[in-house]
Amino acid sequence: MSISAVKIVGSGLIGTSIGLALSARGVRVLMADIDPVASALAQSLIGKDHQASNSDTFDVVVLAVPPSSFKEVLDVEKELNPLSTFVDILSIKTKPLLEVQGMSDVASRFVGTHPMAGREISGAQSARGDLFVGRTWIVTTGESVQKRSSDLAAELISLCGALPVYMDAQEHDRAMALVSHAPQMLASVLSSQLIGVNPAWLTLIGQGFRDFTRIADSDPILWKEILSENSANILPVLSNFRKRLEEIESELSDSSFAQSAIELGNRGRKLIPGKHGNTARTYIYLHIVIDDKAGQLASIFNDCASANVNIEDVSIEHTPGQNTGLVTLSILDMDNARHLEGFLGEQGWKVHLTSN
Amino acid sequence: MSISAVKIVGSGLIGTSIGLALSARGVRVLMADIDPVASALAQSLIGKDHQASNSDTFDVVVLAVPPSSFKEVLDVEKELNPLSTFVDILSIKTKPLLEVQGMSDVASRFVGTHPMAGREISGAQSARGDLFVGRTWIVTTGESVQKRSSDLAAELISLCGALPVYMDAQEHDRAMALVSHAPQMLASVLSSQLIGVNPAWLTLIGQGFRDFTRIADSDPILWKEILSENSANILPVLSNFRKRLEEIESELSDSSFAQSAIELGNRGRKLIPGKHGNTARTYIYLHIVIDDKAGQLASIFNDCASANVNIEDVSIEHTPGQNTGLVTLSILDMDNARHLEGFLGEQGWKVHLTSN
Repeated sequence: MSISAVKIVGSGLIGTSIGLALSARGVRVLMADIDPVASALAQSLIGKDHQASNSDTFDVVVLAVPPSSFKEVLDVEKELNPLSTFVDILSIKTKPLLEVQGMSDVASRFVGTHPMAGREISGAQSARGDLFVGRTWIVTTGESVQKRSSDLAAELISLCGALPVYMDAQEHDRAMALVSHAPQMLASVLSSQLIGVNPAWLTLIGQGFRDFTRIADSDPILWKEILSENSANILPVLSNFRKRLEEIESELSDSSFAQSAIELGNRGRKLIPGKHGNTARTYIYLHIVIDDKAGQLASIFNDCASANVNIEDVSIEHTPGQNTGLVTLSILDMDNARHLEGFLGEQGWKVHLTSN
Repeated sequence: MSISAVKIVGSGLIGTSIGLALSARGVRVLMADIDPVASALAQSLIGKDHQASNSDTFDVVVLAVPPSSFKEVLDVEKELNPLSTFVDILSIKTKPLLEVQGMSDVASRFVGTHPMAGREISGAQSARGDLFVGRTWIVTTGESVQKRSSDLAAELISLCGALPVYMDAQEHDRAMALVSHAPQMLASVLSSQLIGVNPAWLTLIGQGFRDFTRIADSDPILWKEILSENSANILPVLSNFRKRLEEIESELSDSSFAQSAIELGNRGRKLIPGKHGNTARTYIYLHIVIDDKAGQLASIFNDCASANVNIEDVSIEHTPGQNTGLVTLSILDMDNARHLEGFLGEQGWKVHLTSN
């Protein structure tokens, strides 16, 4: 292993999660932040045994700061660490690369990256050492980077349990505009249209609308930078989208047109890789009505364990005021699902099997 | 109880779920369908003990058929059941009401309704007797309906465990255009834009995009009718949305504009009622890393039961190839969450508590 000490500037969710992952693999880590409370919390989560000190020579300095602080932090850190490799984690990649290409003393030691992991909550307190395990981690190296630095970046990613995927920075930013930045804006615009509507309308909101707009809960401070700095790539996506809407508006009353619009959406959805970047899985579902009280879940999972069937996913839906809930177990193959259905039925559970 | 026998025409998810709910409350039910296999399956799920016969006088006939079959089925059933009250469950309400107002022999006995429940899967095999428990069930009565019929509709809804909410049919259709039909179209349009993109881009798709486009998996045959028949109400929503997009396109590179667009989305989202139509709940989360094998979940839930803490929701995320998974438990209050965190920690689990 060539990485023994790493400095992480930015003690938020991503920076601290990287710190936790690296320290678990024996790397000494120094957490820093403009907010001393954040860096102290991050460092204490990582533990004193794994703490690097300011006088260390860092193999890698990770810049886990917002887009607006990136250049300023790099200017300071490159003076402090004239031999280190620098890695950023920003969700836009063209702009930092351009900035670094103008800094001749650091351009050959800078590797732009973007881990495909995150959570809807932020801060060191939400960090997890396994945040990146099994995830894709995009690497967008500039032309002038030295091999030693790109090797160190790849090693850091692999120590975090993630899989490096190499991509051109401009390509990355165009893809993110389509699959992340434009959807963010569409969800925010639709959510904002609830403002001022008749409150009775809100009672008609179902799970579809909730899921569709979940990302509209995102942090405006973080997103204002992403959206404005990648606006050149987001604009063509929004503009295509808007033109397609215009077509739809002129044809919507034609039912065969409406059908084909939904069918095209079905086709697009099928292209999305599965939960873990593999082909999408299909599950068999067992639905079990339970009493909504402590102990019932334990009892079900005990029975699942006795049946020796692995549960891929679980969801619970409550029916308040009725003291009942519905547990749905997802199972990968029909044989196991049938076996578990029979076994749970024998134990007295009311089980319904479905697949789709 | 004045309802003793009900005929349900349409043995899909909604019709069969109504049948299951009513029969559990002692009502005799006759299931019908244009497809005899579907009605036989539905009737067998309900059971012979609760079966009504064709010679019964039905208090209520439920029309649980697609929009395109509604009029035809009503024409047949009103001749067969000259005294019954008719209830439909279509997700558009103005058009059936208009059609019925032209049928003088049935207009006073027809009640338009729309249960706010459904599943992403269809068919009698997916039906559940508790599908409507605790849900809102919209009632849009015409002016000419007799009191006896609206009382019977309210009784049917309450036997299903749902809560009747009265609303004007036109108001219902305008609300649904905003909270269901337009989002369906937006999700389908965005999903369709994945067709033909560089496959490498698809590896950047995260949970946000997946949730945003989940409804794009919907059935084109069902939706072509909803979208075309409610197009008059959907068009102004799409057109407003498109105009707002145009504004955004011209201002997106301005970061304070981008920030305010996201903030407006935050505000709109906060107006959405909680999971069960109550105020939105906030949860405390316990994150637990487990081995990805049978028995681990049982073991956790056993420990939760010993700690006597109720789990509101569970999610499981797998990290394939690593044989580990992350279980997240949602708990309603901080005291219970802290207690459970401590207890699980003592049992040797690695627990991280977060709240947001």
